[in-house]
Amino acid sequence: MISEKTIGRLSAYRRLLNTLAETGETYIYSHQLGSLAGSTAAQVRRDLMVIGCNGSPARGYEVPVLIEAIGDFLDAPQGMGAAMVGSGRLGQAILEYFRGRRPKLSFSVAFDADESKTGRTIHGCPCHPLADLPRLIAEKEITVAVLAVPAREAQAACDALVRAGVRSVLNFAPVRLRVPKGIHVEDMDMTTALEKAAYFARVDESND
Amino acid sequence: MISEKTIGRLSAYRRLLNTLAETGETYIYSHQLGSLAGSTAAQVRRDLMVIGCNGSPARGYEVPVLIEAIGDFLDAPQGMGAAMVGSGRLGQAILEYFRGRRPKLSFSVAFDADESKTGRTIHGCPCHPLADLPRLIAEKEITVAVLAVPAREAQAACDALVRAGVRSVLNFAPVRLRVPKGIHVEDMDMTTALEKAAYFARVDESND
Repeated sequence: MISEKTIGRLSAYRRLLNTLAETGETYIYSHQLGSLAGSTAAQVRRDLMVIGCNGSPARGYEVPVLIEAIGDFLDAPQGMGAAMVGSGRLGQAILEYFRGRRPKLSFSVAFDADESKTGRTIHGCPCHPLADLPRLIAEKEITVAVLAVPAREAQAACDALVRAGVRSVLNFAPVRLRVPKGIHVEDMDMTTALEKAAYFARVDESND
Repeated sequence: MISEKTIGRLSAYRRLLNTLAETGETYIYSHQLGSLAGSTAAQVRRDLMVIGCNGSPARGYEVPVLIEAIGDFLDAPQGMGAAMVGSGRLGQAILEYFRGRRPKLSFSVAFDADESKTGRTIHGCPCHPLADLPRLIAEKEITVAVLAVPAREAQAACDALVRAGVRSVLNFAPVRLRVPKGIHVEDMDMTTALEKAAYFARVDESND
Protein backbone atom coordinates (compact mmCIF):
# COMPACT_ATOMS: atom_id res chain seq x y z
CA MET A 1 0.00 0.00 0.00
CA ILE A 2 1.41 3.37 -1.08
CA SER A 3 1.12 6.07 1.57
CA GLU A 4 -1.34 8.94 1.26
CA LYS A 5 1.52 11.41 1.30
CA THR A 6 3.22 9.74 -1.64
CA ILE A 7 -0.04 9.85 -3.63
CA GLY A 8 -0.46 13.53 -2.78
CA ARG A 9 3.10 14.32 -3.85
CA LEU A 10 2.77 12.39 -7.14
CA SER A 11 -0.36 14.40 -7.94
CA ALA A 12 1.46 17.65 -7.13
CA TYR A 13 4.52 16.61 -9.19
CA ARG A 14 2.29 15.98 -12.20
CA ARG A 15 0.77 19.44 -11.98
CA LEU A 16 4.23 21.00 -11.74
CA LEU A 17 5.48 18.86 -14.64
CA ASN A 18 2.48 19.88 -16.77
CA THR A 19 3.43 23.50 -16.16
CA LEU A 20 7.03 22.80 -17.15
CA ALA A 21 5.92 20.92 -20.28
CA GLU A 22 3.84 23.93 -21.36
CA THR A 23 6.96 26.09 -21.26
CA GLY A 24 8.85 23.52 -23.36
CA GLU A 25 11.05 21.95 -20.67
CA THR A 26 11.98 18.38 -21.61
CA TYR A 27 14.26 17.28 -18.74
CA ILE A 28 14.24 17.92 -15.00
CA TYR A 29 16.53 16.86 -12.15
CA SER A 30 15.09 15.47 -8.93
CA HIS A 31 16.48 18.43 -6.98
CA GLN A 32 14.69 20.87 -9.32
CA LEU A 33 11.35 19.10 -8.99
CA GLY A 34 11.94 18.80 -5.24
CA SER A 35 12.62 22.51 -4.94
CA LEU A 36 9.38 23.35 -6.78
CA ALA A 37 7.34 20.90 -4.70
CA GLY A 38 8.97 21.57 -1.33
CA SER A 39 10.55 18.08 -1.15
CA THR A 40 14.15 16.92 -1.07
CA ALA A 41 15.80 15.39 -4.15
CA ALA A 42 15.98 12.06 -2.30
CA GLN A 43 12.25 12.17 -1.57
CA VAL A 44 11.45 12.87 -5.23
CA ARG A 45 13.63 9.95 -6.36
CA ARG A 46 11.98 7.59 -3.84
CA ASP A 47 8.48 8.67 -4.91
CA LEU A 48 9.28 8.22 -8.60
CA MET A 49 10.90 4.84 -7.99
CA VAL A 50 7.55 3.68 -6.55
CA ILE A 51 6.03 4.18 -10.01
CA GLY A 52 9.01 2.63 -11.76
CA CYS A 53 10.78 5.79 -12.91
CA ASN A 54 14.54 6.24 -12.64
CA GLY A 55 16.20 9.39 -13.89
CA SER A 56 19.53 9.54 -15.68
CA PRO A 57 22.34 11.04 -13.58
CA ALA A 58 23.41 13.14 -16.56
CA ARG A 59 20.08 14.55 -17.75
CA GLY A 60 17.58 13.87 -14.98
CA TYR A 61 14.05 12.74 -15.80
CA GLU A 62 12.30 13.18 -19.12
CA VAL A 63 9.28 15.42 -18.42
CA PRO A 64 6.70 13.86 -20.83
CA VAL A 65 7.70 10.33 -19.72
CA LEU A 66 7.19 11.27 -16.07
CA ILE A 67 3.81 12.86 -16.77
CA GLU A 68 2.64 9.70 -18.53
CA ALA A 69 4.01 7.38 -15.82
CA ILE A 70 2.27 9.34 -13.06
CA GLY A 71 -0.96 9.27 -15.08
CA ASP A 72 -0.70 5.50 -15.59
CA PHE A 73 -0.30 5.11 -11.85
CA LEU A 74 -2.83 7.64 -10.49
CA ASP A 75 -5.61 7.59 -13.07
CA ALA A 76 -8.19 4.91 -13.73
CA PRO A 77 -7.34 3.53 -17.19
CA GLN A 78 -10.91 3.99 -18.48
CA GLY A 79 -11.46 7.27 -16.63
CA MET A 80 -13.60 7.77 -13.56
CA GLY A 81 -16.83 9.62 -12.88
CA ALA A 82 -17.25 11.33 -9.51
CA ALA A 83 -20.43 12.44 -7.75
CA MET A 84 -21.05 15.90 -6.27
CA VAL A 85 -23.37 15.84 -3.28
CA GLY A 86 -24.68 19.33 -2.53
CA SER A 87 -24.96 21.69 -5.47
CA GLY A 88 -25.15 25.01 -3.64
CA ARG A 89 -22.62 27.78 -3.92
CA LEU A 90 -19.62 25.64 -2.98
CA GLY A 91 -20.62 22.56 -4.98
CA GLN A 92 -21.21 24.68 -8.07
CA ALA A 93 -17.85 26.42 -7.68
CA ILE A 94 -16.08 23.05 -7.46
CA LEU A 95 -17.97 21.70 -10.48
CA GLU A 96 -16.94 24.77 -12.42
CA TYR A 97 -13.33 24.55 -11.26
CA PHE A 98 -12.86 20.91 -12.29
CA ARG A 99 -14.84 21.06 -15.54
CA GLY A 100 -12.56 19.69 -18.27
CA ARG A 101 -9.51 19.86 -16.03
CA ARG A 102 -8.67 16.14 -16.05
CA PRO A 103 -9.35 13.83 -18.99
CA LYS A 104 -9.68 10.76 -16.73
CA LEU A 105 -11.54 12.24 -13.76
CA SER A 106 -14.71 14.28 -14.04
CA PHE A 107 -18.06 14.78 -12.33
CA SER A 108 -20.73 12.65 -13.94
CA VAL A 109 -23.62 13.36 -11.56
CA ALA A 110 -24.62 15.93 -8.93
CA PHE A 111 -27.29 15.88 -6.23
CA ASP A 112 -29.19 18.44 -4.21
CA ALA A 113 -32.10 18.49 -1.79
CA ASP A 114 -33.37 21.78 -3.27
CA GLU A 115 -35.83 21.23 -6.13
CA SER A 116 -34.85 24.52 -7.76
CA LYS A 117 -31.42 23.02 -8.49
CA THR A 118 -32.44 19.57 -9.71
CA GLY A 119 -33.55 18.53 -13.18
CA ARG A 120 -30.97 20.72 -14.89
CA THR A 121 -27.30 20.65 -15.81
CA ILE A 122 -24.84 22.58 -13.64
CA HIS A 123 -21.46 23.30 -15.27
CA GLY A 124 -21.89 20.29 -17.52
CA CYS A 125 -23.12 17.95 -14.77
CA PRO A 126 -26.74 16.76 -14.46
CA CYS A 127 -28.23 17.52 -11.02
CA HIS A 128 -30.69 15.07 -9.46
CA PRO A 129 -32.79 15.00 -6.28
CA LEU A 130 -31.07 13.47 -3.23
CA ALA A 131 -33.73 10.76 -3.23
CA ASP A 132 -32.20 9.36 -6.44
CA LEU A 133 -28.71 9.12 -4.93
CA PRO A 134 -28.77 5.43 -3.89
CA ARG A 135 -30.05 4.25 -7.26
CA LEU A 136 -27.85 6.46 -9.47
CA ILE A 137 -24.61 5.90 -7.53
CA ALA A 138 -25.14 2.14 -7.73
CA GLU A 139 -26.23 2.16 -11.40
CA LYS A 140 -23.30 4.31 -12.51
CA GLU A 141 -20.92 2.36 -10.24
CA ILE A 142 -19.53 5.59 -8.80
CA THR A 143 -16.90 5.05 -6.11
CA VAL A 144 -15.68 8.59 -5.39
CA ALA A 145 -17.78 11.55 -4.23
CA VAL A 146 -17.36 15.13 -3.10
CA LEU A 147 -19.46 16.27 -0.12
CA ALA A 148 -20.40 19.94 -0.30
CA VAL A 149 -23.50 19.91 1.88
CA PRO A 150 -24.15 21.89 5.10
CA ALA A 151 -22.45 20.45 8.20
CA ARG A 152 -25.63 19.01 9.67
CA GLU A 153 -26.42 17.01 6.54
CA ALA A 154 -22.90 15.69 5.94
CA GLN A 155 -23.00 12.48 7.98
CA ALA A 156 -26.33 11.30 6.56
CA ALA A 157 -25.18 12.05 3.01
CA CYS A 158 -21.93 10.20 3.64
CA ASP A 159 -23.81 7.18 5.03
CA ALA A 160 -26.03 7.08 1.94
CA LEU A 161 -22.99 7.28 -0.35
CA VAL A 162 -21.17 4.46 1.41
CA ARG A 163 -24.29 2.25 1.40
CA ALA A 164 -24.59 2.86 -2.36
CA GLY A 165 -21.00 1.77 -3.01
CA VAL A 166 -18.81 4.88 -2.64
CA ARG A 167 -15.33 4.02 -1.32
CA SER A 168 -13.76 7.47 -1.01
CA VAL A 169 -15.11 10.90 -0.05
CA LEU A 170 -13.63 14.37 -0.42
CA ASN A 171 -15.40 16.25 2.38
CA PHE A 172 -15.80 20.05 2.38
CA ALA A 173 -18.13 20.08 5.40
CA PRO A 174 -16.56 21.03 8.74
CA VAL A 175 -17.50 17.70 10.36
CA ARG A 176 -15.41 14.64 11.14
CA LEU A 177 -17.24 11.91 9.25
CA ARG A 178 -17.67 8.45 10.76
CA VAL A 179 -17.07 5.80 8.09
CA PRO A 180 -16.58 2.02 8.08
CA LYS A 181 -13.04 0.65 7.90
CA GLY A 182 -11.61 0.75 4.38
CA ILE A 183 -13.50 3.90 3.34
CA HIS A 184 -11.19 6.81 2.59
CA VAL A 185 -12.06 10.37 3.72
CA GLU A 186 -10.15 13.43 2.59
CA ASP A 187 -11.09 16.65 4.46
CA MET A 188 -10.93 20.16 2.95
CA ASP A 189 -12.18 23.03 5.04
CA MET A 190 -11.78 26.30 3.11
CA THR A 191 -13.38 28.51 5.76
CA THR A 192 -11.09 27.22 8.49
CA ALA A 193 -8.08 27.64 6.19
CA LEU A 194 -9.00 31.28 5.51
CA GLU A 195 -9.75 31.97 9.18
CA LYS A 196 -6.40 30.47 10.17
CA ALA A 197 -4.59 32.56 7.55
CA ALA A 198 -6.38 35.69 8.79
CA TYR A 199 -5.57 34.92 12.43
CA PHE A 200 -1.86 34.45 11.77
CA ALA A 201 -1.78 37.66 9.71
CA ARG A 202 -2.88 39.51 12.86
CA VAL A 203 -0.84 37.58 15.41
CA ASP A 204 2.42 37.86 13.50
CA GLU A 205 1.82 41.58 13.22
CA SER A 206 1.36 42.05 16.93
CA ASN A 207 4.62 40.17 17.54
CA ASP A 208 6.64 42.70 15.52
CA MET B 1 1.81 31.46 20.72
CA ILE B 2 -1.26 29.30 20.13
CA SER B 3 -0.64 26.35 17.81
CA GLU B 4 -2.00 26.25 14.27
CA LYS B 5 -3.97 23.14 15.12
CA THR B 6 -5.72 24.87 18.02
CA ILE B 7 -6.68 27.80 15.75
CA GLY B 8 -8.00 25.38 13.13
CA ARG B 9 -10.06 23.51 15.74
CA LEU B 10 -11.50 26.72 17.21
CA SER B 11 -12.62 27.78 13.72
CA ALA B 12 -14.22 24.38 13.16
CA TYR B 13 -15.91 24.45 16.61
CA ARG B 14 -17.46 27.82 15.77
CA ARG B 15 -18.95 26.52 12.54
CA LEU B 16 -20.38 23.48 14.35
CA LEU B 17 -21.73 25.72 17.13
CA ASN B 18 -23.35 28.06 14.59
CA THR B 19 -25.13 25.04 13.14
CA LEU B 20 -26.30 23.98 16.60
CA ALA B 21 -27.46 27.52 17.42
CA GLU B 22 -29.59 27.56 14.25
CA THR B 23 -31.42 24.47 15.48
CA GLY B 24 -32.04 26.13 18.87
CA GLU B 25 -29.47 24.25 20.97
CA THR B 26 -28.39 26.36 23.97
CA TYR B 27 -25.99 24.06 25.84
CA ILE B 28 -23.39 21.55 24.73
CA TYR B 29 -21.02 19.22 26.59
CA SER B 30 -17.36 18.97 25.61
CA HIS B 31 -17.80 15.31 24.65
CA GLN B 32 -20.65 16.24 22.28
CA LEU B 33 -18.65 18.99 20.56
CA GLY B 34 -15.65 16.67 20.47
CA SER B 35 -17.67 13.93 18.84
CA LEU B 36 -18.91 16.33 16.13
CA ALA B 37 -15.43 17.73 15.50
CA GLY B 38 -13.49 14.47 15.75
CA SER B 39 -11.68 15.52 18.98
CA THR B 40 -11.73 14.12 22.49
CA ALA B 41 -13.66 15.87 25.27
CA ALA B 42 -10.33 16.65 26.97
CA GLN B 43 -9.01 18.28 23.79
CA VAL B 44 -12.14 20.44 23.48
CA ARG B 45 -11.84 21.56 27.10
CA ARG B 46 -8.15 22.44 26.64
CA ASP B 47 -8.85 24.40 23.45
CA LEU B 48 -11.69 26.35 25.07
CA MET B 49 -9.63 27.06 28.18
CA VAL B 50 -7.12 28.81 25.88
CA ILE B 51 -9.80 31.38 25.07
CA GLY B 52 -10.95 31.61 28.70
CA CYS B 53 -14.06 29.42 28.52
CA ASN B 54 -14.91 26.89 31.19
CA GLY B 55 -18.07 24.80 30.97
CA SER B 56 -20.28 23.87 33.87
CA PRO B 57 -20.09 20.20 34.86
CA ALA B 58 -23.89 20.09 35.08
CA ARG B 59 -24.89 21.83 31.84
CA GLY B 60 -21.76 22.02 29.71
CA TYR B 61 -21.00 25.15 27.70
CA GLU B 62 -23.51 27.81 26.71
CA VAL B 63 -23.58 27.79 22.88
CA PRO B 64 -24.04 31.54 22.20
CA VAL B 65 -21.37 32.41 24.79
CA LEU B 66 -18.89 30.05 23.14
CA ILE B 67 -19.63 31.43 19.68
CA GLU B 68 -18.97 34.95 20.90
CA ALA B 69 -15.80 33.98 22.78
CA ILE B 70 -14.34 32.21 19.74
CA GLY B 71 -15.21 35.26 17.61
CA ASP B 72 -13.52 37.62 20.09
CA PHE B 73 -10.42 35.46 19.87
CA LEU B 74 -10.25 34.63 16.15
CA ASP B 75 -11.66 37.73 14.48
CA ALA B 76 -10.08 41.14 14.07
CA PRO B 77 -12.24 43.47 16.24
CA GLN B 78 -12.78 45.98 13.39
CA GLY B 79 -13.03 43.29 10.71
CA MET B 80 -10.45 42.45 8.11
CA GLY B 81 -10.24 42.80 4.35
CA ALA B 82 -8.46 40.10 2.37
CA ALA B 83 -7.02 40.24 -1.15
CA MET B 84 -7.67 37.71 -3.91
CA VAL B 85 -4.77 37.34 -6.33
CA GLY B 86 -5.87 35.61 -9.51
CA SER B 87 -9.49 36.08 -10.52
CA GLY B 88 -9.89 33.18 -12.92
CA ARG B 89 -12.23 30.26 -12.46
CA LEU B 90 -10.92 29.28 -9.02
CA GLY B 91 -10.54 32.82 -7.67
CA GLN B 92 -14.07 33.67 -8.74
CA ALA B 93 -15.46 30.52 -7.14
CA ILE B 94 -13.76 31.36 -3.86
CA LEU B 95 -14.98 34.99 -3.97
CA GLU B 96 -18.50 33.70 -4.54
CA TYR B 97 -18.22 31.11 -1.78
CA PHE B 98 -17.07 33.58 0.89
CA ARG B 99 -19.29 36.50 -0.11
CA GLY B 100 -21.18 37.59 3.00
CA ARG B 101 -20.16 34.46 4.88
CA ARG B 102 -18.25 36.18 7.70
CA PRO B 103 -19.11 39.62 9.06
CA LYS B 104 -15.51 40.30 10.14
CA LEU B 105 -13.60 38.77 7.23
CA SER B 106 -14.27 39.54 3.58
CA PHE B 107 -12.48 40.15 0.30
CA SER B 108 -11.97 43.86 -0.28
CA VAL B 109 -9.87 43.70 -3.44
CA ALA B 110 -9.03 41.25 -6.24
CA PHE B 111 -6.28 41.26 -8.87
CA ASP B 112 -5.73 39.66 -12.24
CA ALA B 113 -3.22 39.91 -15.07
CA ASP B 114 -5.99 39.54 -17.67
CA GLU B 115 -7.42 42.93 -18.75
CA SER B 116 -10.80 41.38 -19.53
CA LYS B 117 -11.26 40.72 -15.80
CA THR B 118 -10.03 44.03 -14.38
CA GLY B 119 -11.95 47.27 -14.00
CA ARG B 120 -15.11 45.49 -12.87
CA THR B 121 -16.61 43.98 -9.74
CA ILE B 122 -16.50 40.18 -9.32
CA HIS B 123 -18.94 38.79 -6.73
CA GLY B 124 -18.90 42.11 -4.90
CA CYS B 125 -15.15 42.57 -5.05
CA PRO B 126 -13.44 45.17 -7.31
CA CYS B 127 -10.83 43.58 -9.61
CA HIS B 128 -7.66 45.53 -10.45
CA PRO B 129 -4.63 44.93 -12.71
CA LEU B 130 -1.73 43.08 -11.07
CA ALA B 131 0.40 46.19 -11.62
CA ASP B 132 -1.67 47.99 -8.97
CA LEU B 133 -1.12 45.27 -6.35
CA PRO B 134 1.83 46.87 -4.50
CA ARG B 135 0.11 50.24 -4.18
CA LEU B 136 -3.37 48.96 -3.26
CA ILE B 137 -2.21 46.33 -0.74
CA ALA B 138 -0.12 48.96 1.02
CA GLU B 139 -2.82 51.69 0.88
CA LYS B 140 -5.54 49.40 2.18
CA GLU B 141 -3.16 47.87 4.76
CA ILE B 142 -4.15 44.36 3.71
CA THR B 143 -2.28 41.63 5.58
CA VAL B 144 -3.98 38.44 4.37
CA ALA B 145 -4.29 37.23 0.78
CA VAL B 146 -5.52 34.22 -1.17
CA LEU B 147 -3.35 33.05 -4.08
CA ALA B 148 -5.38 31.53 -6.90
CA VAL B 149 -2.96 32.06 -9.79
CA PRO B 150 -1.40 29.40 -12.06
CA ALA B 151 1.52 27.51 -10.48
CA ARG B 152 4.20 29.29 -12.46
CA GLU B 153 3.00 32.74 -11.32
CA ALA B 154 2.52 31.86 -7.66
CA GLN B 155 6.00 32.63 -6.29
CA ALA B 156 6.25 36.04 -8.00
CA ALA B 157 2.76 36.98 -6.80
CA CYS B 158 3.61 35.83 -3.28
CA ASP B 159 6.84 37.88 -3.31
CA ALA B 160 4.91 40.98 -4.42
CA LEU B 161 2.33 40.45 -1.66
CA VAL B 162 4.96 40.07 1.05
CA ARG B 163 6.86 43.15 -0.15
CA ALA B 164 3.61 45.13 0.01
CA GLY B 165 2.92 44.10 3.61
CA VAL B 166 0.99 40.83 3.49
CA ARG B 167 1.77 38.57 6.49
CA SER B 168 -0.27 35.49 5.68
CA VAL B 169 -1.18 33.68 2.45
CA LEU B 170 -3.76 31.01 1.70
CA ASN B 171 -2.21 29.29 -1.33
CA PHE B 172 -4.31 27.30 -3.82
CA ALA B 173 -1.42 26.87 -6.30
CA PRO B 174 0.36 23.49 -6.24
CA VAL B 175 3.72 25.05 -5.38
CA ARG B 176 5.64 25.21 -2.14
CA LEU B 177 6.09 28.96 -1.64
CA ARG B 178 9.34 30.35 -0.29
CA VAL B 179 8.61 33.11 2.23
CA PRO B 180 10.64 35.06 4.79
CA LYS B 181 10.51 33.94 8.43
CA GLY B 182 7.37 35.10 10.19
CA ILE B 183 5.16 34.92 7.09
CA HIS B 184 2.40 32.33 7.38
CA VAL B 185 1.46 30.08 4.44
CA GLU B 186 -1.59 27.85 4.42
CA ASP B 187 -1.74 25.42 1.45
CA MET B 188 -4.96 24.13 -0.13
CA ASP B 189 -4.67 21.94 -3.18
CA MET B 190 -8.12 20.89 -4.37
CA THR B 191 -6.93 18.99 -7.42
CA THR B 192 -4.52 16.88 -5.40
CA ALA B 193 -7.24 16.23 -2.81
CA LEU B 194 -9.65 15.01 -5.49
CA GLU B 195 -6.97 12.91 -7.20
CA LYS B 196 -6.04 11.32 -3.87
CA ALA B 197 -9.69 10.57 -3.13
CA ALA B 198 -10.10 9.02 -6.60
CA TYR B 199 -6.95 6.92 -6.22
CA PHE B 200 -8.02 5.46 -2.87
CA ALA B 201 -11.48 4.71 -4.24
CA ARG B 202 -9.80 2.42 -6.79
CA VAL B 203 -7.12 0.94 -4.56
CA ASP B 204 -9.49 0.04 -1.74
CA GLU B 205 -11.71 -1.66 -4.29
CA SER B 206 -8.93 -3.83 -5.65
CA ASN B 207 -8.06 -4.87 -2.08
CA ASP B 208 -11.50 -6.33 -1.49
